[in-house]
Amino acid sequence: MPKVAIAGAGLVGALNACYFAQRGWDVEVYEFRRDIRTLEHVPGRSINLALSQRGKCALEAVGLKDYIVDQGVPMYARLVHNVDGKTFSRQPYGQPGEHIVSINRRHLNEVMITQAEKSKNVRFFFEHKVLLLSLNVVVVSLHLPWKVETTVKADLVIACDGAYSAVRRSLATQPRFDYSQEYIGHGYIELNILPKNDEYALEPNVFHLWPRGHFTLIALANRDKTFTVTIFAPFSEFEDKMSTPKDAEIFFQKNFPDAYELLGRDHLLDTFRRVKPQSLVSIKCRPHDFADFVLLTGDAAHAMVPFYGQGMNCGFEDCLVLKETLDVCNDDIPKALSMYSASRVKDTHTIIDLAMYNYEELKDLVNHPSYKLRKKFDLFLNRLFPNWWIPLYSMVTFTRIPYHEVVEKRKWQDKVSYFRKKMICSIRHPLHFCFHLEFC
Amino acid sequence: MPKVAIAGAGLVGALNACYFAQRGWDVEVYEFRRDIRTLEHVPGRSINLALSQRGKCALEAVGLKDYIVDQGVPMYARLVHNVDGKTFSRQPYGQPGEHIVSINRRHLNEVMITQAEKSKNVRFFFEHKVLLLSLNVVVVSLHLPWKVETTVKADLVIACDGAYSAVRRSLATQPRFDYSQEYIGHGYIELNILPKNDEYALEPNVFHLWPRGHFTLIALANRDKTFTVTIFAPFSEFEDKMSTPKDAEIFFQKNFPDAYELLGRDHLLDTFRRVKPQSLVSIKCRPHDFADFVLLTGDAAHAMVPFYGQGMNCGFEDCLVLKETLDVCNDDIPKALSMYSASRVKDTHTIIDLAMYNYEELKDLVNHPSYKLRKKFDLFLNRLFPNWWIPLYSMVTFTRIPYHEVVEKRKWQDKVSYFRKKMICSIRHPLHFCFHLEFC
Repeated sequence: MPKVAIAGAGLVGALNACYFAQRGWDVEVYEFRRDIRTLEHVPGRSINLALSQRGKCALEAVGLKDYIVDQGVPMYARLVHNVDGKTFSRQPYGQPGEHIVSINRRHLNEVMITQAEKSKNVRFFFEHKVLLLSLNVVVVSLHLPWKVETTVKADLVIACDGAYSAVRRSLATQPRFDYSQEYIGHGYIELNILPKNDEYALEPNVFHLWPRGHFTLIALANRDKTFTVTIFAPFSEFEDKMSTPKDAEIFFQKNFPDAYELLGRDHLLDTFRRVKPQSLVSIKCRPHDFADFVLLTGDAAHAMVPFYGQGMNCGFEDCLVLKETLDVCNDDIPKALSMYSASRVKDTHTIIDLAMYNYEELKDLVNHPSYKLRKKFDLFLNRLFPNWWIPLYSMVTFTRIPYHEVVEKRKWQDKVSYFRKKMICSIRHPLHFCFHLEFC
Repeated sequence: MPKVAIAGAGLVGALNACYFAQRGWDVEVYEFRRDIRTLEHVPGRSINLALSQRGKCALEAVGLKDYIVDQGVPMYARLVHNVDGKTFSRQPYGQPGEHIVSINRRHLNEVMITQAEKSKNVRFFFEHKVLLLSLNVVVVSLHLPWKVETTVKADLVIACDGAYSAVRRSLATQPRFDYSQEYIGHGYIELNILPKNDEYALEPNVFHLWPRGHFTLIALANRDKTFTVTIFAPFSEFEDKMSTPKDAEIFFQKNFPDAYELLGRDHLLDTFRRVKPQSLVSIKCRPHDFADFVLLTGDAAHAMVPFYGQGMNCGFEDCLVLKETLDVCNDDIPKALSMYSASRVKDTHTIIDLAMYNYEELKDLVNHPSYKLRKKFDLFLNRLFPNWWIPLYSMVTFTRIPYHEVVEKRKWQDKVSYFRKKMICSIRHPLHFCFHLEFC
């Protein structure tokens, strides 16, 4: 059987391990950190993730979907909190029943590692870092007082070592390797809302959103009846308006009065005393395959800002697309990698751009009448013609339509929608209609 | 006096050394390669460079301009070679007398190293590589059989270690460091035309150009009466049409019959037997300064495709802008670096984009009637109003107007030029004029 070496036992690495375990390959997984199952506290990265269709399909193929979904909290709509702290508006994600699932990152990761380990053809090596030196796979052991470098032979190397991928950095001087990393001007800080009388302090089955123009607050429910709350704001706003815990308190009281009450003064002051805003990066590269045996997947290939909730889902879909491609190519690795990269680069570039665009939506657009009208129009047509008219958000979140096709379909919808606007306009001002038609 | 450590003794590193020698600082220059003055053959990088106003100004400030310009070959126009191999058209670069200078890279580099070394406050260390490890400047000696790593203390570190900068790569995981590298789909191969009867085989004082749509050939004169000839073509074209020396010969005979005659069959076959097409990359990053004491300049900060002839000129201008900024800031290094980066990022991003755009021009546009007409219109207005209307190419090449302002001015000119077109249109079709005016 072929041997695959996987760099990284995070979400995508662990899922890839499950896939190749099922395929019967020899699997070696090298993880830079210690086994998270043995850690009290896992540093870095946000706590919550929103699992949607692409992620679910990828988990289903290795028999993990139902178990994982059961461990999460379904969310059926966005609940927009107005600045008065008392009124809300509700925006369903899709048709009745369509939902995303709030999942705990750590729990999900632990389940997948344990699942992969059940196969006797899978071995995990924690505290081992993978580098590619002149395209040789070198594994550095970090668990000893001295570093030991070993060269590993593998038929396939999959880098799932995250946005700061050491494998990708080893490849950075490969000729004709396009790469970009772009930080956005916004940072984020995570907070918590504790249960109230042993119950959820807010409605659990929605995605809570406090859009305030250039900054925004979100909250997702956890199974332990807490909420993970995240504020996103420009770094300049953190510096100007939230530079001291006291200033942060005033900022929250003014902009998110209801959330402020639930977070509690002490927790807010303590968090802003301890924590600095974290940065957010988009990473694109092309190709994803190298030298016929190396493949970048997950954040190592395509880190994105979190505003479409697709980072994990896209990474999980990578595993599924790779499996499907290897199936089509009868395990011809070079052929499969090249085919995978050709299609996946296009799709991942698209979702990275969409994620960036969705930030605009979350920050502000959700409050615009024209946005709300379009959302209603989309859902109305979708109810009438469920296979023919699927709103953008639904195509991304509730289908496996390749991301680049999603955007093509949306462009076509925009044209139709433009015609709709002109129709409305024509009813009001018949003469204008002729004028506008010309420029459709 | 403050101490500056310069990574790289290439063109920009050596010029920076001259500048800081003049400033009286302690200067240490670390160069990865051996001293090029001791090498028989210098590997990599193209042989010819076109020196223009920005480069000249930068050389003048350290008293090197006249000597360097005297060693070059002035070029006053593009000479476009038609596919019949017999007819040409001539496009002056600017007003009579305005020219760029073809310079030999190696000679220029050697002169600048020697000039810098004349100051007793400058020391060169060849076969030494600079890395930043946790923002400590670590110099690795490569001239011994074993590597020796030394930590160096410096008030300022300037990375001039080229497009594949090791210093920049050490900084790649710094938070909020934007970076992109983009390879174009075209590669290049260099050839030579030897003298004919001890004279130039082509007119020396022009930039020779064979534009053929998606591929192109150029030739620049050297002082030894040879020409350096470069073919730029898509990699796919190299693979499909020039994969064997024989195919390359047929390709040249068909597309560049006059150049083929001068290159000679043997030289052409031999080159295509030995050499593979080299790739071309654009590199952008933001910021150029780090931690109040590290600055990226030259290709380490902004590699560009060679189609505007501004790579070296922009790198040289970096040295001059840095000097001017340190002057303004009275040698307050953190303040100067931050001010430098804020303005230089914008300017270098602009010239990188312009260089990419100019490829379109070199490949094809120069043959379009509308392009030629615009060129003539620009030069005509420039002659009438030399300070008010400067063509884009002239602003980039013959002035020190900051690159980003060049583009703003051009946008304004485009609006005026659009109006001109409509005026012409209105004379021919008076009724159309009213229609177009509406959409100006």
